[in-house]
Amino acid sequence: MPHLKDVAPQLAQQAIELPSWAFGNSGTRFKVFGSAGTARDPFEKIADAAQVHRYTGLAPVVALHIPWDTVESFADLRKHAEDLGVQLGTVNSNTFQDDDYKLGALTHTDATIRRKAIDHHLECIDVMDATGSRDLKIWLAEGSNYPGQADLRGRQDRLAESLATIYERIGENQRLVLEYKFFEPAFYHTDVPDWGTSYAQVSALGERAVVCLDTGHHAPGTNIEFIVMQLLRLGKLGSFDFNSRFYADDDLIVGAADPFQLFRILFEVVRGGGYGNPDVAFMLDQCHNIEQKIPGQIRSVLNVQEMTARALLVDTEALTAAQESGDVLGANAIFMDAFYTDVRPGLAEWRESRGLPADPMKAYAASGYQQQIETDRVGGAQASWGA
Amino acid sequence: MPHLKDVAPQLAQQAIELPSWAFGNSGTRFKVFGSAGTARDPFEKIADAAQVHRYTGLAPVVALHIPWDTVESFADLRKHAEDLGVQLGTVNSNTFQDDDYKLGALTHTDATIRRKAIDHHLECIDVMDATGSRDLKIWLAEGSNYPGQADLRGRQDRLAESLATIYERIGENQRLVLEYKFFEPAFYHTDVPDWGTSYAQVSALGERAVVCLDTGHHAPGTNIEFIVMQLLRLGKLGSFDFNSRFYADDDLIVGAADPFQLFRILFEVVRGGGYGNPDVAFMLDQCHNIEQKIPGQIRSVLNVQEMTARALLVDTEALTAAQESGDVLGANAIFMDAFYTDVRPGLAEWRESRGLPADPMKAYAASGYQQQIETDRVGGAQASWGA
Amino acid sequence: MPHLKDVAPQLAQQAIELPSWAFGNSGTRFKVFGSAGTARDPFEKIADAAQVHRYTGLAPVVALHIPWDTVESFADLRKHAEDLGVQLGTVNSNTFQDDDYKLGALTHTDATIRRKAIDHHLECIDVMDATGSRDLKIWLAEGSNYPGQADLRGRQDRLAESLATIYERIGENQRLVLEYKFFEPAFYHTDVPDWGTSYAQVSALGERAVVCLDTGHHAPGTNIEFIVMQLLRLGKLGSFDFNSRFYADDDLIVGAADPFQLFRILFEVVRGGGYGNPDVAFMLDQCHNIEQKIPGQIRSVLNVQEMTARALLVDTEALTAAQESGDVLGANAIFMDAFYTDVRPGLAEWRESRGLPADPMKAYAASGYQQQIETDRVGGAQASWGA
Amino acid sequence: MPHLKDVAPQLAQQAIELPSWAFGNSGTRFKVFGSAGTARDPFEKIADAAQVHRYTGLAPVVALHIPWDTVESFADLRKHAEDLGVQLGTVNSNTFQDDDYKLGALTHTDATIRRKAIDHHLECIDVMDATGSRDLKIWLAEGSNYPGQADLRGRQDRLAESLATIYERIGENQRLVLEYKFFEPAFYHTDVPDWGTSYAQVSALGERAVVCLDTGHHAPGTNIEFIVMQLLRLGKLGSFDFNSRFYADDDLIVGAADPFQLFRILFEVVRGGGYGNPDVAFMLDQCHNIEQKIPGQIRSVLNVQEMTARALLVDTEALTAAQESGDVLGANAIFMDAFYTDVRPGLAEWRESRGLPADPMKAYAASGYQQQIETDRVGGAQASWGA
Repeated sequence: MPHLKDVAPQLAQQAIELPSWAFGNSGTRFKVFGSAGTARDPFEKIADAAQVHRYTGLAPVVALHIPWDTVESFADLRKHAEDLGVQLGTVNSNTFQDDDYKLGALTHTDATIRRKAIDHHLECIDVMDATGSRDLKIWLAEGSNYPGQADLRGRQDRLAESLATIYERIGENQRLVLEYKFFEPAFYHTDVPDWGTSYAQVSALGERAVVCLDTGHHAPGTNIEFIVMQLLRLGKLGSFDFNSRFYADDDLIVGAADPFQLFRILFEVVRGGGYGNPDVAFMLDQCHNIEQKIPGQIRSVLNVQEMTARALLVDTEALTAAQESGDVLGANAIFMDAFYTDVRPGLAEWRESRGLPADPMKAYAASGYQQQIETDRVGGAQASWGA
Repeated sequence: MPHLKDVAPQLAQQAIELPSWAFGNSGTRFKVFGSAGTARDPFEKIADAAQVHRYTGLAPVVALHIPWDTVESFADLRKHAEDLGVQLGTVNSNTFQDDDYKLGALTHTDATIRRKAIDHHLECIDVMDATGSRDLKIWLAEGSNYPGQADLRGRQDRLAESLATIYERIGENQRLVLEYKFFEPAFYHTDVPDWGTSYAQVSALGERAVVCLDTGHHAPGTNIEFIVMQLLRLGKLGSFDFNSRFYADDDLIVGAADPFQLFRILFEVVRGGGYGNPDVAFMLDQCHNIEQKIPGQIRSVLNVQEMTARALLVDTEALTAAQESGDVLGANAIFMDAFYTDVRPGLAEWRESRGLPADPMKAYAASGYQQQIETDRVGGAQASWGA
Repeated sequence: MPHLKDVAPQLAQQAIELPSWAFGNSGTRFKVFGSAGTARDPFEKIADAAQVHRYTGLAPVVALHIPWDTVESFADLRKHAEDLGVQLGTVNSNTFQDDDYKLGALTHTDATIRRKAIDHHLECIDVMDATGSRDLKIWLAEGSNYPGQADLRGRQDRLAESLATIYERIGENQRLVLEYKFFEPAFYHTDVPDWGTSYAQVSALGERAVVCLDTGHHAPGTNIEFIVMQLLRLGKLGSFDFNSRFYADDDLIVGAADPFQLFRILFEVVRGGGYGNPDVAFMLDQCHNIEQKIPGQIRSVLNVQEMTARALLVDTEALTAAQESGDVLGANAIFMDAFYTDVRPGLAEWRESRGLPADPMKAYAASGYQQQIETDRVGGAQASWGA
Repeated sequence: MPHLKDVAPQLAQQAIELPSWAFGNSGTRFKVFGSAGTARDPFEKIADAAQVHRYTGLAPVVALHIPWDTVESFADLRKHAEDLGVQLGTVNSNTFQDDDYKLGALTHTDATIRRKAIDHHLECIDVMDATGSRDLKIWLAEGSNYPGQADLRGRQDRLAESLATIYERIGENQRLVLEYKFFEPAFYHTDVPDWGTSYAQVSALGERAVVCLDTGHHAPGTNIEFIVMQLLRLGKLGSFDFNSRFYADDDLIVGAADPFQLFRILFEVVRGGGYGNPDVAFMLDQCHNIEQKIPGQIRSVLNVQEMTARALLVDTEALTAAQESGDVLGANAIFMDAFYTDVRPGLAEWRESRGLPADPMKAYAASGYQQQIETDRVGGAQASWGA
């Protein structure tokens, strides 16, 4: 098995995008708990995100959500980010919080509403132009709750049309990234429920349209790493939304529910050439309901890093030999050997060698930043999914 | 197979309790869509609920949720209800919307918070005394999101203690009803996740403690009618929360997702002596996100009635004979025969014979009530889960 | 809503293919129960299958499984079938019961074993040429049980290669039909686990390669009718394997577990132009473990017919109007109206008008065929999955 | 966090029972692959099981399955086992492979068949008396495939009666252990589908009746460690059947699918006083389909040991403090710290200090035993589930 130092150069390639909305409040339909110090505007969210990067060196980019992150001057926001050592990244559209979109947006039967939803995406591309973002990420919250309520086929056709209109406006160096989700907020059907649908839709658009895989958006029991493999093989894996789940789309800390699954996913990323590949963006989509926000994100990016290190440690030569000789137990043992290796001490050293704190969680806690924001951010409305 | 008229006397026994909160707004964590005419206070909610009963004759009771339905005078609310031909029913407690309860209420490690949650339940019993309600329904939104976050065993023991304290205060003619739920809003564990836990907890309390089965609160693939059978057999099925689900706790119209499952459940209710039995309360727990509220409830109670009729139509003598002779296909055919029977024309007749409209949905639509409330209820804050 | 007679011409188009293996014994890993009268060879299986068609008029074709149905002369088998009023249909290959295939067949790392598996398929095409069959159906039982055991990506690439070699030999009027399955017999990954993978693989082959959707082969909660819609939209739905399931791949009588789901699937078939369309083959893949085999198949084809009738009864004009006006409850009601309609009396009449028995189950029971085969088929080995 | 040596005394208490049937062939309904050297009778199975203990020191007991392990003299079998350094353990009954049991055994409507099934259990108790076994384990393969096929309630009542008759014969130092299983081989309902049912049934019997928890027998998403906690709390956790699963009851190597889940389960065992407690038996129920049998069992017991070590390493004092202070991230971190610790080097040392090989897998491979049995065991019928 390789040693951690053997894979150090590869570790240095890792960059994980943070979602701005992780620094506002979020919760469940039953309650959104607030917490002291929560950011009140996009500038404060980016300041918080920059803390994650400061202590981990892993999170140099922050994804925006429009209109939650709408500001008067995106140039100012961009400068603010760059001053703090991070960049603005993926722009996420939102067509699920306007009364007009109650029964659909890009798929709506009413052409006026579809146009409104398309125009929103064109404005998002304007934002991308201003922020220098490459990716427009579309998560469709659309679907229906009752059998018969909607014409599944008509909606799919309208979706194709709407996406084509948006895609026309995507710049040469930009991409349209289409996320799929099994269910929620729609409960009978969602218009892009699985990777197959997203793949079919983006394939019809063209080369700059790709799929986003959110690790929490699958049916129970789905072998997610298989999908990773397949999308890489088909050249259509554009980005990840990492988080973890026990049941539905729980949006928990990455790796919290099933660390071994995270390992298997990252192994397939490496196997399929998706690591250190600018075409495959690593993002988090984790939302904090009960834990502190900034350390929660730190934990997530560290978990991604630790599992990436383990995935890089797999002795692929020995693995291939065992696989080819039909040695079931042997191949599994080689794979597990990397998973069970404790990479944490080695990563602490690696961090120090790069001027980062050995223990980012402790360093953040000791920094006083949390106390500072709890003291400073008094008054105003805390940011949340609704604003 | 019996004819519908043979079972008419049994149909007359049906009474389904409506949840007051169904008449306020509810939704998903992404968006709560409002709608014109939504009730703004408990009085208006009860007025709306009374409409459901008016057109169906099936829904003479309205369940309350405290504090959402807190009013200055419960005596006034009771009189208001009675004037409109309905009664106040089950009182539902709420220990999931106060910041203190972020990490637990009846199970919290902090005795002060536990006491606060217990006291809330004692106040609910005061409300019950004022409203004449029999049942205190406890749905525990408690649990944890991360492995290690909480001591599962300690919480279970504290739950037992807290429930015992509440139970002591339950009157001779009152009951404590403990609901279970697989997940949400907690994502790693919930403190009462399954019928077994609810059964073990209420068995330890005493005779007036029983289980509430919400049809949307189970793991995928769970055979719910088996649980109905088992709880009836054990004498601990206190009430139902009817709704339907495709994925998680979708809270859709009863029977909308799997009408055959609803039939099987109602068959076991009848089989086990739970029908026409005051000890087994039928309630809805359906929340309207995108459809109109009052007709949505009308549809749900009609669906329960139609499936009950089908369940009553099963030729149990022939069924038993087929089961005992090992005739697999024959027994299944007898069972399906009742399910596939179209009871709707017979029920329309039955309704008319009782002075009710043949088609309650149409009658409500024609009544002008909806237009009236949309005109009248202008200003004020629409009721919702948060108020 | 249309009347049943309005859709009678469409009903006459229905033809459902029966699996020969349904007339041999099958079971679970725990026990294969035998039953008196079970067919002992392909000729007897076809005789039994012909009974299903005789009493229903719905099942004029019998699918073969090679090598289970290998006979000395397929010309003789074909004549035997035609004499009994049925035709030989889809040929199913088998690469899961030879020791060589323990770790894979078309995906195996060993080129010799891959070649053996490819050659088996070429022999199947020879059988098709002899029987006049159009479709070669490939269900891949391949996959792995343990993470690391196999190289997911390498297997996918080898699969593509193997399929391409087989596809080359497919005749101008023949098709390669690729089935997908979520899990079993492999437990960690299967090589074609979902429609997306099957779609990607057949798309790479060409026009005469299509997807087979087995209704029991999906993750819990999957919206199957959505997949039906999507594959029809993409022009790649080649055939159905109908059966039903509560948990895994239970292979129960069609419609037994969730009749409403069967209705929704058939509605999408009709909606998407898949009904009365020779490019979309209806097959059963139901296996009898505890019930009588011939009446079990009769029940299944009747269930498909009854649900097809209901699907055809949907008032699509009114439905479209309700959908377009955003009338959620109204659209759902129109849809459910067809589902709740009891089509059985009308279908009995329709059958009689075509010289078929009003009640095929009863007619078969009265025919004495079952008693005859139980008396005649003494000695010899009953057919089963292993032979 | 404690060091591995701190927990060494506790590690010495570990004893895991092996299933005799793991040393015969098993498989899926599609194929049972044989393998060279497979045991042909109970004596050979026990010889193979003894190998697992020889190299790990963890598996001193072998569970029997009747009638698969029926021998002329159980005294001889017992002596054979003791000569090889192992003991005979739990006796498992079998009421699922006789034609009489096709529709039920202990729950059958026919009293004669129920009596036959009861008598089989009484014979199993005779075997226990001869072998010195303490536990009679009952896994009920009973249930139904179709709604209506069976009277769920009647079966439950008959089950209670049958179990009571068996329980009467259970000796003072013996126990009746009732396993539950979500589904399979029955597909609509199983008579003991969940822990609640098993708990209710054994509670009605008496103190010497307890529950067996098979880690593969739950609905998707079930929090198994919660059930462990609850059954320990209620004093009814009698034994474990360890194995792992991705989808259904896959019977894979323990910890192969979700090592973190295994850790959480073992943590609750320790937390609830179930470790080092003779009342809670650790067994494997893992069946080898494609991998070598003896090393497969070695891997499983080692996985249990490694996870037990990690569970013992949790700093429970710090954990409690974090839990009580509401430090969500802190408590989770303490918990994960133990999980991520690589205990393998320490366990290798610990093994050597006790005269065991540092690497049991390698030691077995080097021993020549496998080659020996492959050479010696020629002719005869390999043992399997059917014999």
